Formats: sequence, structure tokens, C-alpha cells
Amino acid sequence: MAIISGPQVAAEDLKRFVEDVLLKLDVPDDEARIVADVLVTADLRGVSSHGVGRLHYYVDALAKGLITRPARITMRAEWPALAYIDGGGSLGQVVGYRAMQKCLDMAERAGAACVTVANSKHFGIAAYYAMMAPPRGMIGISLTNSRPHVPPTFGRKAVLGTNPIAMAVPAGRERPWVLDMATSTIPLGKVEVAQRAGRPLPLGTAFDADGQLTTDPSAVERGGSLSPLGGGAETAGYKGYGLSVLVDILCGVLSGSGYCALFRPGWAESETSHFFAALRIDAVRPAGDFEAMMEAMIRDLRATPKAAGQTRVLVHGEPEYEAEEAQRRNGVALQPKVTQELREMALRYGVRELAMRDS
Amino acid sequence: MAIISGPQVAAEDLKRFVEDVLLKLDVPDDEARIVADVLVTADLRGVSSHGVGRLHYYVDALAKGLITRPARITMRAEWPALAYIDGGGSLGQVVGYRAMQKCLDMAERAGAACVTVANSKHFGIAAYYAMMAPPRGMIGISLTNSRPHVPPTFGRKAVLGTNPIAMAVPAGRERPWVLDMATSTIPLGKVEVAQRAGRPLPLGTAFDADGQLTTDPSAVERGGSLSPLGGGAETAGYKGYGLSVLVDILCGVLSGSGYCALFRPGWAESETSHFFAALRIDAVRPAGDFEAMMEAMIRDLRATPKAAGQTRVLVHGEPEYEAEEAQRRNGVALQPKVTQELREMALRYGVRELAMRDS
Repeated sequence: MAIISGPQVAAEDLKRFVEDVLLKLDVPDDEARIVADVLVTADLRGVSSHGVGRLHYYVDALAKGLITRPARITMRAEWPALAYIDGGGSLGQVVGYRAMQKCLDMAERAGAACVTVANSKHFGIAAYYAMMAPPRGMIGISLTNSRPHVPPTFGRKAVLGTNPIAMAVPAGRERPWVLDMATSTIPLGKVEVAQRAGRPLPLGTAFDADGQLTTDPSAVERGGSLSPLGGGAETAGYKGYGLSVLVDILCGVLSGSGYCALFRPGWAESETSHFFAALRIDAVRPAGDFEAMMEAMIRDLRATPKAAGQTRVLVHGEPEYEAEEAQRRNGVALQPKVTQELREMALRYGVRELAMRDS
Repeated sequence: MAIISGPQVAAEDLKRFVEDVLLKLDVPDDEARIVADVLVTADLRGVSSHGVGRLHYYVDALAKGLITRPARITMRAEWPALAYIDGGGSLGQVVGYRAMQKCLDMAERAGAACVTVANSKHFGIAAYYAMMAPPRGMIGISLTNSRPHVPPTFGRKAVLGTNPIAMAVPAGRERPWVLDMATSTIPLGKVEVAQRAGRPLPLGTAFDADGQLTTDPSAVERGGSLSPLGGGAETAGYKGYGLSVLVDILCGVLSGSGYCALFRPGWAESETSHFFAALRIDAVRPAGDFEAMMEAMIRDLRATPKAAGQTRVLVHGEPEYEAEEAQRRNGVALQPKVTQELREMALRYGVRELAMRDS
């Protein structure tokens, strides 16, 4: 979430750059636009772990022919409120975008709808797809499975994904309420940061190779794992374990793509699967009434008496909106490693280099 | 979850007793049967916190005229895949049962369906309603909001409910996979148990009146609160906070019944709201294929290499099935306090006393 200090670039320039690189790899124009928007939106929201710093993974997989383009997305079953989509190994962002569009169209007619998606690829931030719902007056839900990093409670082998849950809800004059959470306690990125900084991890966030809680970030690399939300059994880590499986059932098992433990090891080889849902608010009651109650709830949460030493009670989505506003104004901050990668891509694919300005 | 040792009673006798008491309080026969089944199912599953030990709350509220009977349940909006039901202040179990029936009927036709429910009462264990789905070849989801016991991250006032999430999934030759979890780290009952035993709470499960983590169970009583799943901010308690709000949006805000912080203080006065969802598996792919993958996933989870010192990796639902089998065989174990309450009710309402046998 922390905004990186470093060279900055205008969001629109960054999107254009990502599109240009993808076009050189035979990704059609409309698909490149979606992928660029999903990646840059992550950076703008301060979720740089899922931003253009991951472009090189997609580029490598495209160059090796491991991703289908143009997208080959097929409808395998369609009921009034449940669709089954096969992503055909296409870019996960394109699959996710089109599946959520379909879900919203179905929910418009049926009041609510769900879509399960097989054979996709990593789709970036789950929130992106959930956030497509509020502008259409709907609640959006977006889930995905992912490669295993988390053991079940009392196990020591990571067989569960960090399988995120995202939901976005219109809130009238407030910005939509947006939750986007991995079902592990912390992401792998936080372990790497602690390791580089020589800092211990908070107890309850990681296990060593024996499946014991550890504060040593290097123990994770040496056969350890991330804890499910809740940590160890005493602090109800079996709930995070349950949430991870819940997500995997709706994504991997329902779609038949396979649960996390069956994922092939590579980033691009993984047959990721997704699940989307949408609910039309005015099917239940006037949207304005609903939104007024959302506004009141958000205001009440913000006004909660604060714990000793705290200055602010946050509401889900706020830190990301604030990051986005700052970076739309000042440019997107990129890590030096990422700017270097983008420079190399520009050279390799004959794309115009990004105009950076130092912060 | 632990099975209580104490006087035991046959499950069918216990159900009959609950029905008899409710009949004396003018609850119609079919409604009494539902309430009895939900309460005794909780006891059978080892969730005695939600079992017949709570009958006296319902009895008091019925005696005071605070619960509508016969049930007055009305459909306020109906779309092919989204219904809006008003519980009319009727018994929560009756409202929940009928709303989930409706949800399953709708999902049978539309492939998937959701129901949001306003103006209900406490409906017991969330799992009960989710578990109605697997016998019909569907995935069931059941959510409810509840009275506030949990503060948002960085707050010190409990304004969030323990708002549980339940999901039940058919699994072929395996028993259905059943998750039923409060979005707080631990329930209030565990604080009471630790206090009586003079044991500290695990760090990360509770806050004192200043909103600081505490291991002192008595601090919870003195203005403290339960932590959201994840505990403090360092261990991602903001995720449990987010899940609690997610549940409340789908229950309290969508239905217009009101979010947790608006609950009136009393057990029976609270206008509880619920949310149900169902997905028809064979709308996506042959049920047998899905179930075979569920069986494989469950077997794989059980076979996860174990953490040092552990003998078993559990799968969600297993401890409850084992409790149920044991108690169907040996009788339901009740706490002495509960048997005393039931004896008093028998006298007050002229109902035949329960036949207990000592374990």
C-alpha cells in the first residue's frame, strides 16, 4: 500500500507504454487496453505488487506462446443467473473483464447473477472487476484462486492459494466501499520487504518448514509458508483456511479448472480460475435509499471512538482512493527495478521509452 | 465445539420437548418443528453455544409478545434470481428456513439465486440454512448480521457484529464440506470460558476498553471487545473488519433492516437480517464430475504433510459430523445450567419433563 518514492510517470503514459509493448507481442488493441488499465490501476491504487512490475511475467509468457491471443473465450453453459465461461488460456485480465461484463448484463435482467471461469491466467487485482459493478448500480464480487503459498491448519505444506475476496458497493456521495483482501494474513511481498530490511515478521503471519509460527522472514524462503488469515489455530487460522477453500470451490472446483494444489508450477502455466457475482440494488429497494444507508454506515465507521494512540478509523477503499488521487496528480511512482525492466522492454520491442520525472 | 460431559438426552426427545414448550407459547406446530430442529442440530454438532441453551431467550421474547407468530413473512420484491423478504419480526429460524427454501427453488430455475431478508430475529447457526442446499445438488451460502461485539481496526468501540459466513457444498461420497465461521477471531463464549477457568486469552483475540490487545478475559467485560478475524492491524485484523462489513452490507444494508451499529440493545428487539445464496452445480457441469473433484480436494487436504507435533489435518465440517455421530449414539450432552433451565420451563409451561440419563 505504501507509495514508492522514485521516478514518476503520468498514468496515461504508462498505460500507453504497456499497450505498445503488448501490441508488439501480437495482443489485439482492445485486449492490450484492458490489460494496461488493470495493471496501471493497481499502481495508481498503491498496490504496486500487482502493477506494471508484473508486466515482464506476461511479456515472457506471451513471447513463449503460453498465452492465447487473440483471446478465445467461450460460453460453456448459460442459465438466467449462472454462466460458465472457458477462458481458453487467454490473458486473465481480458477473461476477467469480459466475464464480469457478462455477469453484470445477466444481473441486470435477473436481479443477480454469478459466473464461474475456467482456464484463465492471473488477472491482476481482484478489485478491478468488482469495481465494474457500482457504476451500473450493482454490488460486484470477484474471487480468484492462485498458486499455493498457505498450509491448512496443522499442516506444513503450502497447498492453499492466497485466494482473494473482493467486493465493491455503491455508496452515493461516498466513494464505493471496496474490500480486496487475500485470505492469507500477509502477502509474500511483505515477507520480502521484512527480509531486505532485516526486520522480524509479526508473530502469526508466517510458518517455518516444520509448520511452526515464526517471525523470521528467511524461514519462509527455506520451505516455510504464509499463514491463513487468523494465523495459528489458537487465533482461528482455520477460518482463513476455510475462506481460501471457499474461494477455491467457487473458482477451481465449480469451473473444473482444478483447485490450487493442482496448479502447475509456472506463473503462465497455471490454469487460474475466477468467480464473479453481481446484485442489482434497485431490484430490492430504491437505489437512493440503499446509498443513503451506505453513506450513514461509512460515516459512522469513520466516527468510531478511536483506540488509544490512533488518529483515524479507516473505511475499506479509502487508502487506495487517496493513493490514486495523489498519483493522478503527481504521477505514478515506480521502483527503480521496475523502471529498469520497462527500459529493457522498450529496447527489446522497439517501443518508445517512458518519459520519467524524478520525484 | 467440545462436547460437554453431563446428563444426556436423546436428540428426538429434546426436539419434542422444545416443540412442546413453543406450542404452549402459541407457536404453530410447523414453526415449532423448525425452531426445534435448528436448536437441537446445533447441540448435536457440538455448537452448544447456539443450541437449546438459548431456548430461554426465545421463550422470554415470545412470552413478552416480542416475536410475531404465526410467522408473517412477506415477499417484498421478486426477480428471477433475487428476492427480498420481510421477516415481519417472526422467529428467525422460520424466516431463515423459508427464505432458503425460496432461494433454492429460484436457483433451480435460474441456475443461481440470492435472497436478502429484513426484520428477522436471531436464526441460530448459519450452517443450518447453507446445509439445506447439498441434498438438492446445490452450493448454499448463509450470512447474518448480529449485535455489535467487534470494533473496526484502530477503533475502540464495538460497532461490528460477529456476522458469520457459512457455506455448504456437496462432495459425493464425502460428507458435504461445511464452513461456518464468525468474522470475529473468537466468540464471546470463549472469553467467558477463559474467565471462569482463570486462563489468559491468546494474544490477538480481544481488546480492552482502550482498544489495545489484551490477554485478560475480564478486560472484555470491562468495556473491551472481541477482535475481528486477524486480530490487530499488524496481523491484518482489518480483513476480519472488512468481512464483517461485507456481511452487514448484504444483510442489513441491502435489506434496509439496518447495519449492526443500529441494532436495538435487546436480544429479541434486534432486527436481525440475513442473506442467502444458492448455486445449482449441474447448471455448470455434471454433478458427478464436480463431486469427484470435491472428494479429491478433501482427500488431498487430509493428506497434507503435518506440522511438527500434529496428528491430523482437519477439513471443514469434520469435527461437527463427528460430534453429531457421537451424540446421536450416546445422546445429546447438556450443561447442568441448561438442564435446570429446561426443568423450570417444563414446570412453568406444564410440559412433560425431559428423560435424562447420566453419562
